[in-house]
Amino acid sequence: MTKIQNIKGMRDHLPQAMLLRQHIIHTLTAVFERYGFEPLSTAVVEYAETLEGKLGDDEKLIYRFEDHGGRRLALRYDQTVPLARVVAQYAGQIILPWRRYAIGPSYRGERPARGRYREFWQADVDIVGSASPLADAEIIAVLTDGLKALGFPDFTTLLNHRQVLGGIARISGLDEDAAGGVYRAIDKLDKIGADGVREELLHTGVAPAAANQILELVLLEGQPEDMLVELEQRLRGDERAMRAMANMRAIIAALSDMGIASSHYTLSPRLARGLSYYTGLVFETISAHWPEGSLLGGGRYDDLVGVFAGRSIPTVGLAFGIDRLHDVMEELGLGNYPTTTAQVFVTIFSAEQMAASLQLTRELRTAGLHVITALETNASLGKQFKEADRKGVRYVLVLGPDDLAQDQVVVKDLHRGEQRSVPRTAIVEAIRP
Amino acid sequence: MTKIQNIKGMRDHLPQAMLLRQHIIHTLTAVFERYGFEPLSTAVVEYAETLEGKLGDDEKLIYRFEDHGGRRLALRYDQTVPLARVVAQYAGQIILPWRRYAIGPSYRGERPARGRYREFWQADVDIVGSASPLADAEIIAVLTDGLKALGFPDFTTLLNHRQVLGGIARISGLDEDAAGGVYRAIDKLDKIGADGVREELLHTGVAPAAANQILELVLLEGQPEDMLVELEQRLRGDERAMRAMANMRAIIAALSDMGIASSHYTLSPRLARGLSYYTGLVFETISAHWPEGSLLGGGRYDDLVGVFAGRSIPTVGLAFGIDRLHDVMEELGLGNYPTTTAQVFVTIFSAEQMAASLQLTRELRTAGLHVITALETNASLGKQFKEADRKGVRYVLVLGPDDLAQDQVVVKDLHRGEQRSVPRTAIVEAIRP
Repeated sequence: MTKIQNIKGMRDHLPQAMLLRQHIIHTLTAVFERYGFEPLSTAVVEYAETLEGKLGDDEKLIYRFEDHGGRRLALRYDQTVPLARVVAQYAGQIILPWRRYAIGPSYRGERPARGRYREFWQADVDIVGSASPLADAEIIAVLTDGLKALGFPDFTTLLNHRQVLGGIARISGLDEDAAGGVYRAIDKLDKIGADGVREELLHTGVAPAAANQILELVLLEGQPEDMLVELEQRLRGDERAMRAMANMRAIIAALSDMGIASSHYTLSPRLARGLSYYTGLVFETISAHWPEGSLLGGGRYDDLVGVFAGRSIPTVGLAFGIDRLHDVMEELGLGNYPTTTAQVFVTIFSAEQMAASLQLTRELRTAGLHVITALETNASLGKQFKEADRKGVRYVLVLGPDDLAQDQVVVKDLHRGEQRSVPRTAIVEAIRP
Repeated sequence: MTKIQNIKGMRDHLPQAMLLRQHIIHTLTAVFERYGFEPLSTAVVEYAETLEGKLGDDEKLIYRFEDHGGRRLALRYDQTVPLARVVAQYAGQIILPWRRYAIGPSYRGERPARGRYREFWQADVDIVGSASPLADAEIIAVLTDGLKALGFPDFTTLLNHRQVLGGIARISGLDEDAAGGVYRAIDKLDKIGADGVREELLHTGVAPAAANQILELVLLEGQPEDMLVELEQRLRGDERAMRAMANMRAIIAALSDMGIASSHYTLSPRLARGLSYYTGLVFETISAHWPEGSLLGGGRYDDLVGVFAGRSIPTVGLAFGIDRLHDVMEELGLGNYPTTTAQVFVTIFSAEQMAASLQLTRELRTAGLHVITALETNASLGKQFKEADRKGVRYVLVLGPDDLAQDQVVVKDLHRGEQRSVPRTAIVEAIRP
């Protein structure tokens, strides 16, 4: 007997879930397009070697297989490596700077868990081919407008720069090689607390005085403007960190010019983010309404997109995780979207009245309403009402012989439990949402 | 050196192509939702055994692989088998009859050719759990409204019924076993002509008189109403064919009640369609503007959807091939959709004017316009105009010091080559499409 099941971590989305997912995708797409981002779609299958050598230890999570000609293929792991391939492959057709968005699934052979799926959907936005702080700011602006459009009541994007972190390590007397261990320790601050991080720093071989200095710096909190001043003073001795601070100043000034409320972002010198490919700005968005983790994140990665083209192509971007947004919005009850496709159910009183019901249905659809009809001409009205009710449709319409004679339609509002007769010519207005 | 290429037959869709594809998907989705169809999405990966045993010889085209736990997986071959799985797996959550649509890619290890891809996108609509001719008619209505909404100027859907074909075989004295060869021969009529089909029928073992009778029947053409009468007379001796004719009568009557113009469909007793799983209505849509083949097709298949549930679940449906529609619409120049995401390019006159340009950009985006800005504050205006032009953006806006002082914006329309100054407060109206 065949298994009747989906693969664990690769979900089916039934209509109720799909209506929310489509709402998320349409809402984000509208924001992306207001910012002039252009859609790109690549196949979910790539040559395995396109993905290989870019993911470090995570490479073992790639779904690999052979095609009918023995070629080594793979399901894409994200939408970033395919972007890098496209930028190299169609160099002549793509005008940089390029704002592109891509919405679709990627695949990882992880152990499925709450909130972690083997097929996961992301909405990526990236600005390819610009090192300007305006590009960084624009990505944060898209993020902010996207979450606001989805109805998130409040959220904060933590901003940091890889060379601020690097500066913190360097002015504490550590060399580049030790910095990785420092980032990893700092990254755990929310999980293991300041004492835990201190312990881990000491364990990594950082001297006690340096560990204290690092902790003091990464625990700084405050308004963006104050933080800029404070960090600039403390990092004065490190030239690369000072360039990073100038970059952060420019990004924050642009955010203000772009009309992004300063309540929506802050500087967080402790934000590390795991991925090794970030080179400049890094960010993560958190919300008090969702203590389980960040809503999304991203940053500037100037080396990855050019890897196929063989030159540096500065890029900044982020990925909205559709599954995460779906889970959070469902739990918080966010978003204003329909819970059924159909708004109206047109009954068929009897075989004789069928034509009239179908004609009415046509009119309502032409007016843009979402309408379903009964399919069985011999089903009782009671059974038809029950079908409409089970499907969650709000309005049920009846066109019996008397209604036809009087040129009217009986409209029952199942949400309010009310019933009334409406003149045939006024029916669209009576039920338009 | 890594290959920088996509897999043959699995295409990248750059923005220009994506804008058309999104237009197709949005247009069809709007039609599906007006008919109350509900969205379903399943993962593109299934257990291999879910797909196996349903495709006959085509099974060798399935992309199969193993996951990290050694389980046998496969990329879906179509969206119909996953529908059958979902209907069985979530029986308690799905209320029949169920109108569902699904839009996404499927995969076949075919040799790629013009119009045939290894990753292809389909928009499926099916009515699950109804044997009513109203369901059949509704699918034809969705097809007709869908193609009209996409801008197809004229097209005809050929309608037939499996038991009309069966009746033709039977009244010609052939038994069920021979019928398959007859269908296959008839299916080639457009390719090899009447003489070719006669030859093939004789070759299959059909007696000359029977072959002539079959050919005479399948070559019948005319108005739907006349065809119904003609076929009923000729098939009178075969009870199953007569039931099929009654079914076709009911479908055609419903199409008329649903407001579908009879110029958009006709009876075609020679339409066979390859797939063996059809049990009732079969149809294919053709257009004089596209002589290369049918635009799409579908039919009633009462046995497949219930295969996992272990009972018959009558279903009728069709699949719009997004790739086919894309190719045809591009070639015929159909569809009214934007060719760029961005409508407006806001220049940055100099670093001092940057804030004013970003604020203007914000206002235009808030008004719903699609706006990009320059990202380099030190690029010349000439370079910025060139960037806008290369990207195909229509309006370029300039806010220089004098414009700021006079509270105006310079608007250049690159399509018309015109330039004028517009008061700052009237700018949205001046460029709204």
